Amino acid sequence: MTAEIVVIGDEILLGLIIDTNSAFISRRLAELGTKVNRITKVGDNIDSIAQAFEKAAKEADMVICCGGLGPTHDDKTRDAAAKFLGAELKLNESAFQEIQSMYKKAGRVMSETNRVQAMIPEGAAYLSNSRGTAPGLSFKKDRASFFCLQGVPSEMQWMAETHVFPVVQKIKQGKVLKFRTLRTVGIPESALYEKTKEIVQLFHDKLDIAFLPQMTRGVDIRLTCSVQSAEKAAELIADAEGRFVSCIGQFFSNAVYGYDDETLEQSLAQLFFDTGQTIATAESCTGGLIAHRLTNVSGSSSFFLQGVTTYSNDSKMKLLNVPEKLLTDHGAVSEEVAKSMAENIRKMAGTNLGLSTTGIAGPTGATEHKPVGLAYIGFSTDEKTSAIKLTPLPYAVDRLVFKERLSQMALDVVRKHLVNLKELLNK
Amino acid sequence: MTAEIVVIGDEILLGLIIDTNSAFISRRLAELGTKVNRITKVGDNIDSIAQAFEKAAKEADMVICCGGLGPTHDDKTRDAAAKFLGAELKLNESAFQEIQSMYKKAGRVMSETNRVQAMIPEGAAYLSNSRGTAPGLSFKKDRASFFCLQGVPSEMQWMAETHVFPVVQKIKQGKVLKFRTLRTVGIPESALYEKTKEIVQLFHDKLDIAFLPQMTRGVDIRLTCSVQSAEKAAELIADAEGRFVSCIGQFFSNAVYGYDDETLEQSLAQLFFDTGQTIATAESCTGGLIAHRLTNVSGSSSFFLQGVTTYSNDSKMKLLNVPEKLLTDHGAVSEEVAKSMAENIRKMAGTNLGLSTTGIAGPTGATEHKPVGLAYIGFSTDEKTSAIKLTPLPYAVDRLVFKERLSQMALDVVRKHLVNLKELLNK
Repeated sequence: MTAEIVVIGDEILLGLIIDTNSAFISRRLAELGTKVNRITKVGDNIDSIAQAFEKAAKEADMVICCGGLGPTHDDKTRDAAAKFLGAELKLNESAFQEIQSMYKKAGRVMSETNRVQAMIPEGAAYLSNSRGTAPGLSFKKDRASFFCLQGVPSEMQWMAETHVFPVVQKIKQGKVLKFRTLRTVGIPESALYEKTKEIVQLFHDKLDIAFLPQMTRGVDIRLTCSVQSAEKAAELIADAEGRFVSCIGQFFSNAVYGYDDETLEQSLAQLFFDTGQTIATAESCTGGLIAHRLTNVSGSSSFFLQGVTTYSNDSKMKLLNVPEKLLTDHGAVSEEVAKSMAENIRKMAGTNLGLSTTGIAGPTGATEHKPVGLAYIGFSTDEKTSAIKLTPLPYAVDRLVFKERLSQMALDVVRKHLVNLKELLNK
Repeated sequence: MTAEIVVIGDEILLGLIIDTNSAFISRRLAELGTKVNRITKVGDNIDSIAQAFEKAAKEADMVICCGGLGPTHDDKTRDAAAKFLGAELKLNESAFQEIQSMYKKAGRVMSETNRVQAMIPEGAAYLSNSRGTAPGLSFKKDRASFFCLQGVPSEMQWMAETHVFPVVQKIKQGKVLKFRTLRTVGIPESALYEKTKEIVQLFHDKLDIAFLPQMTRGVDIRLTCSVQSAEKAAELIADAEGRFVSCIGQFFSNAVYGYDDETLEQSLAQLFFDTGQTIATAESCTGGLIAHRLTNVSGSSSFFLQGVTTYSNDSKMKLLNVPEKLLTDHGAVSEEVAKSMAENIRKMAGTNLGLSTTGIAGPTGATEHKPVGLAYIGFSTDEKTSAIKLTPLPYAVDRLVFKERLSQMALDVVRKHLVNLKELLNK
């Protein structure tokens, strides 16, 4: 079985929006053992969409199309499908009722414009959409089954999981593709590669191994295995994973923070659940990002008790009781202030841990001795309060990248502490 | 002049990472009047890269390639370029010195692995990279000029702006493509379209007009104009823009918050600079995201004085003096608590404005009368404290989407207030 993807939208061809939909579909289909042979990107134009459909219908068993189902004049997929099928568009009463009830549920009045979303080519079926107002379409021609889905990623994903992938799973038996990603933080790509290259060598004809540096997050190592049996694939990947983790652990203590799509905050949350510790944050230059990330995990209210963003010196003194003398003697961006912030927030909030950041995010705010990019992370437990100094990267990074990198390193300080604590508790 | 893009990486073909680079390059080239005829995506394989180069060299004047320049075994672009050119790889001394000095500047020791990044095919030139350690490559064959750039987006963008686009600008004279995006918040796509469809009609043969709904941000209206003269394009776009803004303003007060890539926090920061107002935030369910967004703008320390994230009832009482009775009588997710949070943070911080959020982000935490997605925004000025209730969407959204939507609406409450204040001050 082969698949094709057709992505619709002028904004894609002009590079005005980034197409994430074809990557999502490719990945899920690869996991289900189905190869995407071609991805075609066409504009909001009835003829070019219909032509792409014609071509795909002759060469693929399944065609998944994204975009062009909205209510406005630039949404052409319904018309293109009608042209391709040589059929008329007709109002589909049950699709119409679904759209209406969607609006009713939200306590809103349906606009007349939305009526067009219930127009379906004769001979096609509509696909229910419980994540938005536009129904999808499905139809067959030549050897191909067509699924027309939405362009908004969250809607498209729900539609694909509900209406498309179960069909693939049913049909498909064959070669299996398995992925495993090891996520590391705090080590440069080249150092990581150097220490692990013997493992790469060992598996070179059995697995694809890729080192993927992420600007703000660390380096991912991705293992890909393509064999006939799922058991064999799992075995090979488990073997390689074990070697990587133990080798990395030997040189860089606890640098692997998670697997696959796991985020640092998710793996950290699990450590909080396991150890029963609590935390409070005092952020200056990260401006609330650390609190935001901690609260992205469901259940975070059990360990994250409070956070403050103290941007000004005044608020550092008032909200956090940082002594004025520390601020005048050492400046707000200093080891002393980072420690005072972390210790004071911990005591004020009555938590086990206190975490703080202070730094120069830029582009303004630098002085002779304190360049843009300089930052301190303060970390306080009831036994000890310490600070880590971070020097700027050799190249300029923008404000948001700086905040994200720093938040990643600060969360990693907490993670490493909790990993050690968990080991102690388990003894 | 025609261009092609070659994107390299197994992870792209398998949908494991999303290619944003081709969108960036397509867009900048379109703005410079150069059309991208084809985007080819190939894996980390010397032969397939070399084949893609062969094909592109015969059909395009310029080929831009992204990825495969890193230091590890899965980086094949240098080898593929050597094969394509029929040349040997040789250590380039000045490239090598540049990489070394990059490491020195960062106070780090260069790893032996990085040496491979200074290997350049004979006959090719290296392109300096001040944003990372891998130099780029440039060479010519058949009719095409090749530029091999990095895969990490921030590096690639800097390289393209420095080494590629200036060359295009020099060569290129011709049809101009102009874009203008109007960004709106708080209005459904269909309602926006309904009120403005006469303008869409009026310009249908002069401009491309697209309505682009963004999950968490609002709806963008994008105007695209392609004509011979830059003046004519600017005139047409200005005419359409004026009509859209006045029409939208008539039905939905101040719904256009920005233009092109401007974010809501950027347009809001400008209003703070213009009016001299200050703000403090008290966040429950948005967990620090509002403070994070406010501090993403350089200069935000002049108007954003402090923020607190009070996730627990206890911290709402202790840090914000929310009366216990309010919490027990009405619950933490209530109009009364939202108002108390906003008013108290404003008074405590001594700012002109106070903003608060409280809500149920899910997936847990719902009760019979308080479903996931219910939220209140509290807003306090020295004249008045009010709260807005937000009912859940008719379809489930995940935690992060919920936080982002709510932060957008909360920031918009402040923006609308400051727009009105600015008008008053200007009278």
